[in-house]
Amino acid sequence: MNDDNSRLIADRFRNDPRVAQAKALLAETLREYSGSLTEVRSANPQLAEAYAVQLARLTEARGAAPYFPYIASGIGNGPWVELADGSVKLDFIGGIGVHGMGHSHEQMLDAAIDGALEDTVMQGNLQQNRPSIEICERLLAMANCCGSDLGHCLLSTSGAMANENALKIAFHARRPADRIIAFTNCFAGRSLALAALTDRPSYRSGLPETILVDYLPFYDPAKPGESTQAAVDRLQELLARYPGRHAAFWAEPIAGEGGYVAGSPEFFKTLLKPIREAGILTVFDEVQSFGRTTAPLAYQSFDLDRYVDIVTIGKITQVCATLYRKQLQPTAPILSQTFTGASASIATGQRMLDQLASAGCFGVDGRNQRNHDHFVSGLQSLAQRYPGQVQGPYGKGMMIALTPGDGSYETANRWVRELYDAGLICFLCGGNPYRIRFLPPPAITTPLHIDQAIAIIDRMLQTSTSTPAR
Amino acid sequence: MNDDNSRLIADRFRNDPRVAQAKALLAETLREYSGSLTEVRSANPQLAEAYAVQLARLTEARGAAPYFPYIASGIGNGPWVELADGSVKLDFIGGIGVHGMGHSHEQMLDAAIDGALEDTVMQGNLQQNRPSIEICERLLAMANCCGSDLGHCLLSTSGAMANENALKIAFHARRPADRIIAFTNCFAGRSLALAALTDRPSYRSGLPETILVDYLPFYDPAKPGESTQAAVDRLQELLARYPGRHAAFWAEPIAGEGGYVAGSPEFFKTLLKPIREAGILTVFDEVQSFGRTTAPLAYQSFDLDRYVDIVTIGKITQVCATLYRKQLQPTAPILSQTFTGASASIATGQRMLDQLASAGCFGVDGRNQRNHDHFVSGLQSLAQRYPGQVQGPYGKGMMIALTPGDGSYETANRWVRELYDAGLICFLCGGNPYRIRFLPPPAITTPLHIDQAIAIIDRMLQTSTSTPAR
Amino acid sequence: MNDDNSRLIADRFRNDPRVAQAKALLAETLREYSGSLTEVRSANPQLAEAYAVQLARLTEARGAAPYFPYIASGIGNGPWVELADGSVKLDFIGGIGVHGMGHSHEQMLDAAIDGALEDTVMQGNLQQNRPSIEICERLLAMANCCGSDLGHCLLSTSGAMANENALKIAFHARRPADRIIAFTNCFAGRSLALAALTDRPSYRSGLPETILVDYLPFYDPAKPGESTQAAVDRLQELLARYPGRHAAFWAEPIAGEGGYVAGSPEFFKTLLKPIREAGILTVFDEVQSFGRTTAPLAYQSFDLDRYVDIVTIGKITQVCATLYRKQLQPTAPILSQTFTGASASIATGQRMLDQLASAGCFGVDGRNQRNHDHFVSGLQSLAQRYPGQVQGPYGKGMMIALTPGDGSYETANRWVRELYDAGLICFLCGGNPYRIRFLPPPAITTPLHIDQAIAIIDRMLQTSTSTPAR
Amino acid sequence: MNDDNSRLIADRFRNDPRVAQAKALLAETLREYSGSLTEVRSANPQLAEAYAVQLARLTEARGAAPYFPYIASGIGNGPWVELADGSVKLDFIGGIGVHGMGHSHEQMLDAAIDGALEDTVMQGNLQQNRPSIEICERLLAMANCCGSDLGHCLLSTSGAMANENALKIAFHARRPADRIIAFTNCFAGRSLALAALTDRPSYRSGLPETILVDYLPFYDPAKPGESTQAAVDRLQELLARYPGRHAAFWAEPIAGEGGYVAGSPEFFKTLLKPIREAGILTVFDEVQSFGRTTAPLAYQSFDLDRYVDIVTIGKITQVCATLYRKQLQPTAPILSQTFTGASASIATGQRMLDQLASAGCFGVDGRNQRNHDHFVSGLQSLAQRYPGQVQGPYGKGMMIALTPGDGSYETANRWVRELYDAGLICFLCGGNPYRIRFLPPPAITTPLHIDQAIAIIDRMLQTSTSTPAR
Repeated sequence: MNDDNSRLIADRFRNDPRVAQAKALLAETLREYSGSLTEVRSANPQLAEAYAVQLARLTEARGAAPYFPYIASGIGNGPWVELADGSVKLDFIGGIGVHGMGHSHEQMLDAAIDGALEDTVMQGNLQQNRPSIEICERLLAMANCCGSDLGHCLLSTSGAMANENALKIAFHARRPADRIIAFTNCFAGRSLALAALTDRPSYRSGLPETILVDYLPFYDPAKPGESTQAAVDRLQELLARYPGRHAAFWAEPIAGEGGYVAGSPEFFKTLLKPIREAGILTVFDEVQSFGRTTAPLAYQSFDLDRYVDIVTIGKITQVCATLYRKQLQPTAPILSQTFTGASASIATGQRMLDQLASAGCFGVDGRNQRNHDHFVSGLQSLAQRYPGQVQGPYGKGMMIALTPGDGSYETANRWVRELYDAGLICFLCGGNPYRIRFLPPPAITTPLHIDQAIAIIDRMLQTSTSTPAR
Repeated sequence: MNDDNSRLIADRFRNDPRVAQAKALLAETLREYSGSLTEVRSANPQLAEAYAVQLARLTEARGAAPYFPYIASGIGNGPWVELADGSVKLDFIGGIGVHGMGHSHEQMLDAAIDGALEDTVMQGNLQQNRPSIEICERLLAMANCCGSDLGHCLLSTSGAMANENALKIAFHARRPADRIIAFTNCFAGRSLALAALTDRPSYRSGLPETILVDYLPFYDPAKPGESTQAAVDRLQELLARYPGRHAAFWAEPIAGEGGYVAGSPEFFKTLLKPIREAGILTVFDEVQSFGRTTAPLAYQSFDLDRYVDIVTIGKITQVCATLYRKQLQPTAPILSQTFTGASASIATGQRMLDQLASAGCFGVDGRNQRNHDHFVSGLQSLAQRYPGQVQGPYGKGMMIALTPGDGSYETANRWVRELYDAGLICFLCGGNPYRIRFLPPPAITTPLHIDQAIAIIDRMLQTSTSTPAR
Repeated sequence: MNDDNSRLIADRFRNDPRVAQAKALLAETLREYSGSLTEVRSANPQLAEAYAVQLARLTEARGAAPYFPYIASGIGNGPWVELADGSVKLDFIGGIGVHGMGHSHEQMLDAAIDGALEDTVMQGNLQQNRPSIEICERLLAMANCCGSDLGHCLLSTSGAMANENALKIAFHARRPADRIIAFTNCFAGRSLALAALTDRPSYRSGLPETILVDYLPFYDPAKPGESTQAAVDRLQELLARYPGRHAAFWAEPIAGEGGYVAGSPEFFKTLLKPIREAGILTVFDEVQSFGRTTAPLAYQSFDLDRYVDIVTIGKITQVCATLYRKQLQPTAPILSQTFTGASASIATGQRMLDQLASAGCFGVDGRNQRNHDHFVSGLQSLAQRYPGQVQGPYGKGMMIALTPGDGSYETANRWVRELYDAGLICFLCGGNPYRIRFLPPPAITTPLHIDQAIAIIDRMLQTSTSTPAR
Repeated sequence: MNDDNSRLIADRFRNDPRVAQAKALLAETLREYSGSLTEVRSANPQLAEAYAVQLARLTEARGAAPYFPYIASGIGNGPWVELADGSVKLDFIGGIGVHGMGHSHEQMLDAAIDGALEDTVMQGNLQQNRPSIEICERLLAMANCCGSDLGHCLLSTSGAMANENALKIAFHARRPADRIIAFTNCFAGRSLALAALTDRPSYRSGLPETILVDYLPFYDPAKPGESTQAAVDRLQELLARYPGRHAAFWAEPIAGEGGYVAGSPEFFKTLLKPIREAGILTVFDEVQSFGRTTAPLAYQSFDLDRYVDIVTIGKITQVCATLYRKQLQPTAPILSQTFTGASASIATGQRMLDQLASAGCFGVDGRNQRNHDHFVSGLQSLAQRYPGQVQGPYGKGMMIALTPGDGSYETANRWVRELYDAGLICFLCGGNPYRIRFLPPPAITTPLHIDQAIAIIDRMLQTSTSTPAR
């Protein structure tokens, strides 16, 4: 058949009815097993010994115990996840923001099988498949919806490499400038250069200084004018001290590791004007914030579209990326990677974008904001009932945090561990004070899930009376 | 059923017969379509226009044309791959060494579906599934088979991050040492720090100096004694100049990007004795060489097991890793990553290890060596028939290279492009001279595939008379 | 004669009556000629052409015109100096604080002849004469008068090398710490490392970053509490960000180049407590302030004796020095110099110490303070008479500055040039605002000299109406 | 008198007959005492105790014992110097090359008095006297005699600051280039940046890396072709590795601290061609070699006049200087210094230039060469008489060295100390092997002095039988 002959074998394979049949079979099977996971469940005592052995093996292999005694069994249901000890937990951290559809979602399975059907597991700079083109175009379109002018997209397998690529593009474009302006308490990733950029000394303990970074104080929502002025003053001091030496201004629109403090449109605009005038490139690190606010990119929710020169995304997108203006395209071969992404990540990343949209996550009255408001009201009621035990909440959209008790590391750490034992997975952020952060999966979290999380915290607070109050 | 109650839902799901049924259905379907790809095929003229559009879109999205006009359709058969223009090529570069089972292998599909069935697409430092433990243990066991003492394993999603982790471990363990000893022409990856380590100026053009690197000349198989002495002399010069300042000696056992020059056991041992005495850590970068020589790790084939302090692997393993001695475990939280690997990569990585073993790749008379010898004899016969046009071959096992004509960039580049057009995918390496490298998929390459590659080169040489001879 | 035989030939030579006779002859001659220089004198028109030629030659040889069209003839009288065009000027800058006895002082001549009689012009690390011992001991005794514990003294021929030695001692003692804490607007000298430390970007334009410096805001006398708190806050930020990485805290007790802003005892003590607790060494740079406040060292006038770990002095001492605690003595041969000082500098340096003491410069009611008060009252009366034209004065002791008009560079520069033309030599400092600084020679300045300076400024202000007011 | 009125008071003072009278009186007195110092003399036992006290005071004040127990009394006679213990020594090191007229020379006294008669002890960037112009012009003329094109001259008080200025000029002119090419074993001075450039790790022990330096192997007179090729190969390696990153090529024409190895015209020309083509500036560091070869500058004796971009001089010139091409004049205010030189150094520096010329030091058959030949022949005869004890000699002109015995530090150090005790002052250089260096004062050394030195070495070798032979 002529028609058929003109078609690619790959397309004929994909369109063979047996493929759909197999996918349906797997989806149906998953649904049956997954569906039973709808509440916190204790560990199965029969599995305790084997689980202890597995944890010991994990600890031995990694060289250190994992923060949580967590080994997933491989199945879940939305925010619910079964561990290998048979327990079920409400996962409100999701790989620190990765699992935007929760666990074992049928759509993710379907897309992951699409990835599995590709001819190679990994794609790279030299050899790519068609979905690589599609996801790049889609991310660019999404970023440019409202005034940005980002022309190119580079995929990576980690937020760290996406950020490294952003640094490389900025340094190259502004050579020989060799300094970066960043924010106090910022986090940028775990490579040597990004550890130097990250404002956490313990994360670069014993490592050589690799890049030169100057820090601005971040926005303080409690003192909008004063904190903006402090940042501007410091910026002017830096611009005067190192004229022409700064390649980039590096900002998380919402400080992540730094404590879920959100900037504000005015704060950023006030800074970005002199930054732009000084010829310094603006990089937004949205590896954590992508998909979690009222717009796909948090900078869009702050109306900063026209300022962005480079943006990095990751985590919830499954595959990471660096988007940048066309005029920043390097003139030397400084960008390349063996791996741009796993075929599974590229396929599920696209599906994630579909789902965030179809779940209505975005918009000032979208799912993210509504869930945020619901979560906030739950946390506020806890704050009233347990005065001095719960401060906040803080953050934007599906990045929510509270300050527990006195905000010490000990208190925050004890909270996270007690909540984990009680069935709710959350994590630390900040430092002064330490906070508890929640990253509920945007596309599938419901008010009920949030109520269940609030109920677990409530019970924990009832039984735990030892938290030092602020 | 009691027995069943004690089982994890995840295990019950995996063992449900419908899962195997679906996998078999997909495998059978793949087999039918894939099987027809057994020879070079020209592009389908009906697809030319659409393909040109896709290439233009790719170029636009990435910001630069890909080196090859390559967009895979998503199906292949061993070393054969169908492109989106309907053409079929013999892929002897395999993502620069990634696709060790070629394209669309049934075992890879099966393992990738296992990955797809996991509850999350990505695994990370905070939350991992059981296969993460298994692959770490397995890589450690494989590395320690014959005298090494590597205690811990850290997964990563790229060779770059595996190498970054190696650097971080070494710098931290030897703090405040801040220098690295590496080889002329070495390649280590594409982060800022690794671009500083990599001895290719164009790859760090316009980027700030991030780490301090001192270079030794590499082994020259044509002058074993003299080149070893030159390296030792330079080493002694460096040790005298910067006493106590070197954290690590960084070596690819077989120079990859540098030109497929293999070191030798004596060369390395002569260097490693004073290096060890100086307290400098030895890092072998086996991101490209893993799985391609007579042992899983090339350092094993050189009998250097007792010298290795850190080794990095990647590419063919689908997920990358840093293995290191227990005593190097950092005492500060410098190691962590949101992504340790895609579930698909972890599953297929394990399956790859199975297949390399079951295909008999290793051993002094193993498949890698036999294929190497066959390839060498084919290239040598070309060298005889086309004097001055083919020098070499060079390399070890399934890393093979030849010097084309005068070894200039122009000649080598023209060869690669003419061979691509003729249906054989290979790539450049080296620089002085430039070489053509081949990375046939170890586990599935047959002598017939090699003969087909040789035949393509032969035809190219017959028609192309313009190559300047050396 | 027995007695004579036991004496050194050098001593017999020095004690030969002809030496004293020659010195007396020169002193008498100098006195005759010098004594006529007691007021501002215009240039001699007959010398104009020759002077223009000399200035052109100087400009050509140096590569740039000198800031002032100043070439000294080689004679003066206290603050009065004859230029090679026959003009006489009132020198209130004195080589930026060097000529503490003014020009052509008999005591300086006498000491310089002592230096000339030494067997070598220069002394150095390997071979020294007796006066080198004496001056070191004397500087140490002077520094340790009131609670300091500085055990060793290293001479140098420039303040830059004295500061370099201070940096080397501090870095070595706190190795591998590699950062310095300094003040905004600080000036430390003109070597590559000191240009990096100095907070003036134009002074390091185009030079590579050599050392890592973190800056604290300096004391603002107008906002004592607030500015102290700002410095403490920044210090705490730095200590948290770079734990263990700072070798030294570097401070001019009175900012020199930075604008003649004096710190305060409370300001420094508040900072020095956490600095000391963090194990960071305190270096006072007194290259400009030595001999100019109520104590030989300005840190003594601030009661900071017990905090100082290293102090550097220079300018007025003719030979420069680094004094440091015994326990900081380096354990490797990092300190040495071919030149420790010219014999003339060592001899005149000692004589200068004598003269500063015998002129009663020190003490809360000493000559420096009394001249300061007189100068201040003169400047204040100008400030009243020319509102908006004169702000201040600022500074301590014999370091006095005023802000002219709007504090712009243009205004300050014009003032300095107009005053020069009118016969008074002063110079710029600061930057925001720019200031006019005066460094009258402490040991010989009289109230009359100050009145003469005030009168020149007054005349300049009467005739120059164009200064933009603040 | 008209004539007189047009004259400067300074000139009238200088020309007053009493000045000449006083100078004559001092010269006559010096001559009487100095003249008796013509041979080695032992210490006066009556002065032993006082000398021990002085040495202890010196050690205490400096923080470390001086290398030699040397405190000069303040008088000498040519190479003979009286110490404060009454001993007389033959000084063939002269402050490591400073005292080019030996000790207590009448001409130096006369010039030093001229310096003493200036109105200020120190001269600086802001305020200079007429002799500063003259010495700059004279140094430029001397440097440009035979093909160089150095337009500007910057005085400094130390070779270190002269070299710092050279580095600053080079970095600024080639910004953003941030690397230097230098020679193995080079020595450049004692600032932080120069300690980084100097190839002696112990001199920068514990100090931070400040500038980036790449080293070439130096010329080996025993293997002219091979060592030149090795240097060229390394140069090409560096140019390829760091294209455009090198600001300067830094060379001592005759390695000083490095072991008195002379380069050769061919060696340098072979290197300088590609260096110049790469746009890298050539800096000759002649701080030690100035005045000691067959031309004022050693680069002139190597016929490298047209290659030099910057040259630094010092030591024997009493005041140091940086001479550079006009087109390298910085465009930002990066060059300035409070002290450009002591008036005494500027005056004696000029007189030294006179004396080097009038003593006939230069020319292929000049005094330096004739004394060199005489010294060489003396050392060669020692080498014959003490086989295995004396290797060499090495060096050029008035920079002469020999390798003692086995060339170990212990042997060389013992030699220097035994020779010192025997009355001859020399010093170490090199390292592998260690050497004994002699820097006889060029302008006044006679064959008799050299014979006296040889005789002392001869006696030492007769009595000291313990030197391990090579």
